[in-house]
This record gives sequence, structure tokens and C-alpha cells, in this order.
Amino acid sequence: MTELIRKKRGGNALSREEIKYMVEGFTAGDIPDYQMSAFCMAVIFKGMTDEETAALTEEMARSGEMLDLSRFGSLSVDKHSTGGVGDKTSLIVGPIVASSGGIFAKMSGRGLGHTGGTVDKLESIPGYRTSLEKDEFFSQAQRTGIALIGQTGNLTPADKKLYALRDVTDTVDSVPLIVSSIMSKKIAAGAKNIVLDVKCGSGAFMKDIESARTLAQKMVDIGRACGRNMAAVISNMDVPLGFAVGNALEVKEAIAVLKGEDISDLRQICLVLSSELIAMIREISAEEAYAAAENALDSGAALAKMKEWISAQGGDVSLMDNTDKFTKASIVYELCSEKDGYISHMDAELIGRAACELGAGRKTKEDKIDFSAGIVLCKKTGDSVRKGDVLAVFHTSDGEKLENAKSVFLSSLAFSAEKAECGNLILDVLK
Amino acid sequence: MTELIRKKRGGNALSREEIKYMVEGFTAGDIPDYQMSAFCMAVIFKGMTDEETAALTEEMARSGEMLDLSRFGSLSVDKHSTGGVGDKTSLIVGPIVASSGGIFAKMSGRGLGHTGGTVDKLESIPGYRTSLEKDEFFSQAQRTGIALIGQTGNLTPADKKLYALRDVTDTVDSVPLIVSSIMSKKIAAGAKNIVLDVKCGSGAFMKDIESARTLAQKMVDIGRACGRNMAAVISNMDVPLGFAVGNALEVKEAIAVLKGEDISDLRQICLVLSSELIAMIREISAEEAYAAAENALDSGAALAKMKEWISAQGGDVSLMDNTDKFTKASIVYELCSEKDGYISHMDAELIGRAACELGAGRKTKEDKIDFSAGIVLCKKTGDSVRKGDVLAVFHTSDGEKLENAKSVFLSSLAFSAEKAECGNLILDVLK
Repeated sequence: MTELIRKKRGGNALSREEIKYMVEGFTAGDIPDYQMSAFCMAVIFKGMTDEETAALTEEMARSGEMLDLSRFGSLSVDKHSTGGVGDKTSLIVGPIVASSGGIFAKMSGRGLGHTGGTVDKLESIPGYRTSLEKDEFFSQAQRTGIALIGQTGNLTPADKKLYALRDVTDTVDSVPLIVSSIMSKKIAAGAKNIVLDVKCGSGAFMKDIESARTLAQKMVDIGRACGRNMAAVISNMDVPLGFAVGNALEVKEAIAVLKGEDISDLRQICLVLSSELIAMIREISAEEAYAAAENALDSGAALAKMKEWISAQGGDVSLMDNTDKFTKASIVYELCSEKDGYISHMDAELIGRAACELGAGRKTKEDKIDFSAGIVLCKKTGDSVRKGDVLAVFHTSDGEKLENAKSVFLSSLAFSAEKAECGNLILDVLK
Repeated sequence: MTELIRKKRGGNALSREEIKYMVEGFTAGDIPDYQMSAFCMAVIFKGMTDEETAALTEEMARSGEMLDLSRFGSLSVDKHSTGGVGDKTSLIVGPIVASSGGIFAKMSGRGLGHTGGTVDKLESIPGYRTSLEKDEFFSQAQRTGIALIGQTGNLTPADKKLYALRDVTDTVDSVPLIVSSIMSKKIAAGAKNIVLDVKCGSGAFMKDIESARTLAQKMVDIGRACGRNMAAVISNMDVPLGFAVGNALEVKEAIAVLKGEDISDLRQICLVLSSELIAMIREISAEEAYAAAENALDSGAALAKMKEWISAQGGDVSLMDNTDKFTKASIVYELCSEKDGYISHMDAELIGRAACELGAGRKTKEDKIDFSAGIVLCKKTGDSVRKGDVLAVFHTSDGEKLENAKSVFLSSLAFSAEKAECGNLILDVLK
């Protein structure tokens, strides 16, 4: 391993065999953390070639269990978002693509942070089973085109171990290391067709469009080198997607979009993400695919697909028709503005933290999520606000949490006298 | 610590407090190896300022016991060599300087590698006590001007731990890290006046004069920043010093020099090293100091001082008058040349390894040294050789070791048809 560190330090590329040796040794504990962290620091300064990054990605994917979706031929799809607050796109993209011929068979992690992960959101639907036996998972995916369960098994242990090490050795922000970390999980997750939603903006890991584009293009290239069809959408993270942040609140908003409500930024990004996947599985143009996605949404096919999916997985489907039946928070508090002006900026990260304060997320692995808790925004960037107007509605079961959440939320907002320019939501699409 | 890694990664200098925090935490085990190795790798790429290097040196020196030589005022001296094969200079420089007013009170490590360290060499003198109580050590140094014992106590544990880590993470060859490692030990060893013998050449760590000069100047600067008088001599390591390699053989050769024999390269470097220390303690010019060193050697004062020292420390001083009384190897083998020509190059490192094969050194900490084993060279670089001439005499107690040692030794020599230029021994003196 000292030899491999020396090679990287000198700016040379490692062979696939060398990377395999390193990943296997590190995962098994034969290569100690102190050598791996020195290697990562050398990568910070000397980078990695695409061949090295692809090898690292594949070897990390192989370090644990891999989901074999080859039974679905070229129809399996997956969607990944690089962080995001109020991101309920999987709940909309899944049904759109499944109703258009794709197979969305996904194991999803639980969230740690602002709000729950997709599996946590789905648990706010009474009866929804987040764990299925392998056979049932595959047969449901085959039958309905969609199955989404909590992650079981030991996926990419090499990445878990390496990420924890990078986190405490200031070696996180290296493009090849970020790319291989994200893509190893996607490769292990097994789908043939992958669309990435790369967030960009003050609240995101990538602060500017150029670095987001570099990261996105690299992920597309590496995924393709690993034999997958790839596309990446770069989207603006300066505002939360839609209005709802919190588990049940987000599921209700996703249902609203599937019912045809035009929650513009949310509908837009779901259509773009869906169309990229549809273009891959049907081998049609982006325009045709976009029309197909719109048609799936507007015809009600996607909503019907969601009902079929939720029902197949044991969820109470009557909530889809009457979303008032979702569990409700005991305290619903309207936060009013104390000033006039325009909202010039929102920090999505802080809004997520405010929702977490209300009970929507976990601060530690052991925390229980309050599914009903969260925030529904009433004003977003560019909106005019008058003193007394409701800025947002807070949902919580614990009144003591309100004060803290309010101050975090208010710190997320910036006001101006003039109406602020609102940037585009979709900044770029890379293939 | 992650913050400090980030700072260094970004090319910024750490404060003294930050370095103190880091060294203390690392020594105590609170800062894990994987963070320290990442930090070292960042230093490889971003370096350290002189202030940082001095702080690191002093904090590592303070991490364990320190020898307090302040009782000797400005008279305490120390000599350090950066590796070297057949290096018996301490045995000559010590008596010269002690007989000229300096106090050479030194704890010396044991050697691991080619041949023994200075303490091992001294143990080839029957009766020599390599361990003395502190009181006796200091009073002998005060009385005779020289006391040399094996290292006890826990000197610079931070450096030991850091060096072991650097060794396996390819972070050895960084000038500030090398300098702070060497100088922390010198600072902990307590002497006010320090001369460094920095080896340069194919067998040395520093392959060329420029990098040797950079390293030497940095050590001089850092030592001075720590309040010591400093000088560094850069010497050619392409040939072994003198002719003898092996413990008793080297002691005998040192005695020969003290008796006035002109073993030219060995005598020359000992006079230069001694004169630098004498110039410091007496505050006289380099020329005056060199004359004083020559006088100490030629008048027999240095030889008398060596006898006084060895006798004070329990050694059989009769061996000094009759060096035939040193333990002898049972096998003395003359290695003859199989070709004609000139020796164009000798690899001192390999000659050391050949001596080690014969039993002169330790391969592991547990190995016992054969004091009588080693090699006496008969030909050196520039010498003409005819087929059948004796190249070297091997001394060993184990005939089975001869073959291996022969092949290693022969691989250390290069021959040419024309007489090779012999470079100067002393390449530079820096202050």
C-alpha cells in the first residue's frame, strides 16, 4: 500500500488490479485507515483518471451485496439526488416512469438530517410495508413496475468506511472521490438506466454551476464506463422543491402533483427527470419522452400507478383519494411576517433544519420521526410579503419546539425592497 | 484536528498553539493516526514555514524526557550524522573536542541496520559500561569532559510515533518533517553546540548536493531558532569513511587515527567536525579552531582523553595500547579481485549490508551483534586493481555467511578502464 500511496503522490495512475487490492484490503481491515487517509490526501492534490475512478467505483460497488436487476433487461431505472430539502421527486418520478414502461425497483436508505428519506416518507402511509422478501420485491416490481423498500443487506461497505474516514480527514471534496462514492452505490443498486439530480446553489455541496457541471459530467461518464445509461439534471437548490417539507406533508404534495396540480417547480423537475429515463428505456428523443411523461401525468396513468404500487405494498390507498386522512399534527402554527418586502433568498438547508426541529427528521439514528411534523411554505423567493402575511405553516406535536424552529426558519430568509430575480430551476441537462 | 488538516491543505500556516495541540493529542493517542497521516500528506504538498517547523521541533522535543545539560553552561557539545556506513567519527570527535574544553555528554541509540550504533561499537571494549546512573553520568562528563551511554528513558515519543507512521504512508521525504524529526531529538538531547554531518551521495538519503544543502541549512536555521549554536558539514557518502566497517574493527581504526595515523578521509572529516564545535565553545575563528583540533590530535591529547574516558567508564584501557587484544573473528577471508581495472564507484550502503551479513549489524531488534565481524577495505574508489589483488578482508565467526556477504559486496563495486575522478570528501560547511 505504501507503494500505491507513493504512486499517487507522484501523480501516477493506479491500475485496476492495484485499486482492487486497495479496496479489498481496506474493506477487510488489512489496509489501515492511516494509509487510506494519506492516499485520499494525495488524491486531493493529484486527482484520479477516469479509468481509476471507474475502477474505484466498481470495486467499491463489489465490496458488498449487489442488487441484480438483470431480470428486467434494459427496463430497470433509478433516480438519485445529491441532497435536497423537501425532495419528494422519487414519489412522482417513480409512478410516471413505471406507467411508461420502466421498472423502478429500489432499495432506499433512511434519512439522517432535515427530513426523512423516501422510505420514511412512505411510512407515513398507514400499512405501507417497507420491507419485503426478495421474491416478493422482484415479483411486485415485475407486475406493477414499481417496488420501493428500505435498504437491507450490506451495500458498498467500502464506501461507508471510506466516507467516514474522509469526513474526519478533510478529504471529502475531491471530484473522483465524490463521484466514486455516489456511483458505487448506484452501480450496486443494479439499475441499467440512471438519472441524477445534481443540486447546485448556496445550500448544496456544489455552490456554482461550473463545479456542479464538472461533477455531473464525471458521474455520467463513470456510470457509462460501468455499463449504465446515464443522464444528469443540474437543478437550482436555492429554493426548496414545492412548498412542503416533512414526511406526510411531502407525500400529500406528491399526490397533488400526480392529481394534476401545477406546483410548478416540482412538476417541472419531475417531468424532466422522468423524460430522461423514458428516453433511455424507449430509445426515443428527449422531446418525445417529455411528451410521454406529460401524458402519463395528465392522463392520470401515473396516479393510477401510484395507487397500484401503494396498494401492492400494503398501504392504505384510500388516503390517496382523501389526503385529509393522513395523520395530522396537533399543533398547526402560522408564522407571520413582521416586515414588508420581497423574499430575495431562501436557504433550503436552514428550512430543512427548521423542519427537523419540529420533529420531521432525525438528529441521531435512534430518533423517531414525527410523520405529521414539518413546514408548508406560503411564500417563496421572489414573492412579495406584507407585514402580517403568513410566511409558512408549522406542523408539530410538541409546542416547545416552535420557538427554536421559528428562529432557524427566519434566519433562512433574506428580504429586499425590490423583487428579486428568480433563477431557472433547471440549469442544465448532461448526457 | 480536521480543521488543522484543512488549514494545511489550503496552504496556510498553523500557529504554535495549534501545533502544540496536535503534537500533544497525537502523542496521547487522542488524535488518531489516520488524521495525522492525512496532515503529513498535506505537508508533502504544501510544506511548512520555518516558524511551524521550529514549533513542531520543540513540541516533539517536549513530548518526552529531555536531557538537561544546562549545568555545563555553553560548553556542552553534540554531533549528529544523517546515516553513514563505517562512521566512527563520534569516537574521534568526542575526545578531540573534550580535550579542547568541550563537554560531550551523550546518550546514544543502538544501531539497527548495517553495523551497530556508537554504543554497540563501544561495547566491543571489554568492561565498557553503557549504562550509568544520571549522577555518575553527569559527574563523569564534568570531570573528564566526555561520557557516552546508551539511551534510556523516553526521548521524543512524538517523533518515534510520527516517524513510524510516515514510514508506512509515504510521507518521509518532506524537508520540514525530516528536519523536525532530526532536530527534535537533538533539542531533547540538550547540547548547546551542535554540529551536523549531512551525508550526500548515491548511498545517502540526499542524493545531490543541492537537496543536501537545503536540508542542512534548514536544520541549522531551526536549531538556531531553538536557541542552539549550529553548524552543518556536508560530506560525500559515495565511499565509506576510512577502511573498517564493523564494531571492533571501527574502534581499532578510530584508535589508530587518535594515535596519529593519517587515514585521510576519516582524519579530515573528524578535524572539520571538531573544529566547528571548538569554534563555538571558544568563540574563535574556524581557522584557529581547526588548528586547535589538529593540535589536540597530533599532541596526543585526544588519545589521552579517550583513555581517560574509557577508563572512567570501566573499559579495559590496555586495548588502546595493544589493539591486538580486541576480540577477533575466527574466520578471516581475503576477497580477491577477478578482474583488472580501476574502481570507479563504491556503494557504501551495500558495503554496510555485506558487513551486516557477516554479523556486524542487527537485522531485527533482537539480533545479537558479533563485535568482531565486519569488513576491512583494501581498495577504494580511484584505486587500481589487478586480478588477484585483495579487495577486502572479511571477518566473521560463521563461515556460512561468507558467500552471501561476498555477492553483496561485489555488487557494491563498479570498475572502469580509466582512473575515476574522486570527488571531495567535504562538499560544504553551512552555519
